[in-house]
Amino acid sequence: MSVTAASGFAAAGVAAGLKASGKRDLAIVQNLGPLSAAATVFTTNRCQANPVIWSRQVIADGVASAIVLNSGGANCYTGAQGFQTTHATAEAVGERLGVSAGDVLVCSTGLIGDQLDLGKLTTGVTDAAAALTAGVGLGADAGLAAAEAIMTTDTKPKQAEHRSPAGWTVGGMAKGAGMLAPGLATMLVVITTDAVLDSAQLDAALRAATRVTFDRLDSDGCMSTNDTVALLGSGASGVAADEAEFAAALTAVCRDLAEQLQADAEGASHDIAIEVVNAASEDDAVTVGRAVSRSNLFKAAIFGNDPNWGRVLAAVGTTDAVFDPYGIDVAINGIQICTAGEPDQPRELVDLTPRAVHILIDLHAGSETATILTNDLTHDYVHENSAYAS
Amino acid sequence: MSVTAASGFAAAGVAAGLKASGKRDLAIVQNLGPLSAAATVFTTNRCQANPVIWSRQVIADGVASAIVLNSGGANCYTGAQGFQTTHATAEAVGERLGVSAGDVLVCSTGLIGDQLDLGKLTTGVTDAAAALTAGVGLGADAGLAAAEAIMTTDTKPKQAEHRSPAGWTVGGMAKGAGMLAPGLATMLVVITTDAVLDSAQLDAALRAATRVTFDRLDSDGCMSTNDTVALLGSGASGVAADEAEFAAALTAVCRDLAEQLQADAEGASHDIAIEVVNAASEDDAVTVGRAVSRSNLFKAAIFGNDPNWGRVLAAVGTTDAVFDPYGIDVAINGIQICTAGEPDQPRELVDLTPRAVHILIDLHAGSETATILTNDLTHDYVHENSAYAS
Repeated sequence: MSVTAASGFAAAGVAAGLKASGKRDLAIVQNLGPLSAAATVFTTNRCQANPVIWSRQVIADGVASAIVLNSGGANCYTGAQGFQTTHATAEAVGERLGVSAGDVLVCSTGLIGDQLDLGKLTTGVTDAAAALTAGVGLGADAGLAAAEAIMTTDTKPKQAEHRSPAGWTVGGMAKGAGMLAPGLATMLVVITTDAVLDSAQLDAALRAATRVTFDRLDSDGCMSTNDTVALLGSGASGVAADEAEFAAALTAVCRDLAEQLQADAEGASHDIAIEVVNAASEDDAVTVGRAVSRSNLFKAAIFGNDPNWGRVLAAVGTTDAVFDPYGIDVAINGIQICTAGEPDQPRELVDLTPRAVHILIDLHAGSETATILTNDLTHDYVHENSAYAS
Repeated sequence: MSVTAASGFAAAGVAAGLKASGKRDLAIVQNLGPLSAAATVFTTNRCQANPVIWSRQVIADGVASAIVLNSGGANCYTGAQGFQTTHATAEAVGERLGVSAGDVLVCSTGLIGDQLDLGKLTTGVTDAAAALTAGVGLGADAGLAAAEAIMTTDTKPKQAEHRSPAGWTVGGMAKGAGMLAPGLATMLVVITTDAVLDSAQLDAALRAATRVTFDRLDSDGCMSTNDTVALLGSGASGVAADEAEFAAALTAVCRDLAEQLQADAEGASHDIAIEVVNAASEDDAVTVGRAVSRSNLFKAAIFGNDPNWGRVLAAVGTTDAVFDPYGIDVAINGIQICTAGEPDQPRELVDLTPRAVHILIDLHAGSETATILTNDLTHDYVHENSAYAS
């Protein structure tokens, strides 16, 4: 499982003291080669954290030897001192592992606006690197420790893997429970593969995969400053992967992780899939699904097991997608509750007690489709996010 | 107070049985003339309720003799039968008051997707018209009854007035507690004036006033299908108002009502004013303020009295406004908590216990400004909106 499933990778997760709880809060994933190809996708938020600013430079040449991630602080809006902290962290990793600091990606997650403690970070890097150089970073336990170290309000670590019959493997870990919205769906994700692919091939596959997975997870409409998805390729399998097969496998791993993120979203009591069909374009389908996923009234209704399709259509109506406003069908959990903009089956037939909710919106405007994943708006979401900083 | 403050207007509010509670749920405001000038602004949601579709036709010639409003059902997504209900309501009002049905504006508010009971509506119209024709619709009590009849989840009626030394008056009433977002800020509003102004003058003043008041109230980011602001002019004062003075007075009345809507927003425990200054354009200021007002994480933090300025900047960063992401200042309730994208005064100095909250965002990109009004995201908001349909 996780980032150590693919050969050529080692991982460690340690407690550096950044989390008040004393739990694991620093992870390193090292690419042991022979290749050190890499690709990344970052948040599209214009307010970007220092690790994102740093990692954009690291990835410019398509090479990364390691990635270091910490929870317990986002290192965002911390100015020159914060950037220096990120830089020093990369230098420490480079020194301990014998690689260039310029090939070390950095990710941070936690509260915005607080300085990270560089002393604790450095101690954590030293401990994690010691485990890696001692050769204890290769098994599933090491991958799990890394996955645990990046958790914030996550209640469980998130890992996935895919083994190709051709002899290569993709593995990954993710964190993310709040600020889940696209571009990307606020998260840190590290995916590893031992397939023989160069950085351009990894980049193309990663962009294609995130576009239809993490970018379509919109739990609470809030876009993070720290989102990073990194894909590292060791080439250790010696097998040159078929690009189409690899893209499909990578997409499957990303989808698996995205669904784990949705299932563990802060305070949520329903996992909602909003499927928009017969749209004039894929963009239209995404736009409509996203508008519904961002309606607090719709999301609060689902929390209360209320199949309030009026709130679905009110959200659809705020978009510029192609449709006849009075020609839309809505089905909730298989019950066609609205046909051509009029009531159809009685609301009472809709059973919203299961955690999984399926909203089907038929725009009757074309043949394109997209599904947006979101969650309901609950008392617990409000509670967790009002108490986060305390 | 209210819609009967200006001369030349009568109002009535009755219980037609549309609300299960048996409370008042139908109002008529009649323009007694001599003028019957009118202007309206409607929701920009493409999914529009039947009363909106009807009223767009009524207002086309700038003439309205009366407006009838009901709570207890939005008459939206109710198809041909729903439109016929709206039409029949206007016909009933026209017949009882001796005016053309084509000069009767109709507004409805309540749950989307249920048919209104035309029999109850007609009985209510008959009762309200009887009061009007008996001459008991002229006082403040009549205005209050009308304001009460349009309430849904509002906890109190909303009324405002402005008396000009020049001898004319503006009065108004409003409802709206959820689905408060622009274009317009989901509501029904009726404003009356006895100033001598034609419909084109009323229209210009109304658009200018709503642009900087109701359109800048964004309580929960959800846009309604039924929003209507109607301005009726009787000319009964005989005084031709100065247009600039009238526009200022109308804006003051609209702002007063908008602030009453904010103060009574569903479940809210804080009234938040997000003031964006030194923007490159007014549109930029509005865009930035609105992005912050729609961040559930920011709103949940304010509920928890947490001055989480990182969530402010994370929301600002999602916009395309002109600014240097690392050159923004943020003050909360007078404490400069972030300067040029770095921590400044300690969070602990910010007192968020008062209901009124002021967020000041300095973009350092120009000289334009705008203020968006919003509310926090609370347990009660979630509760009220998960139970709405039941």
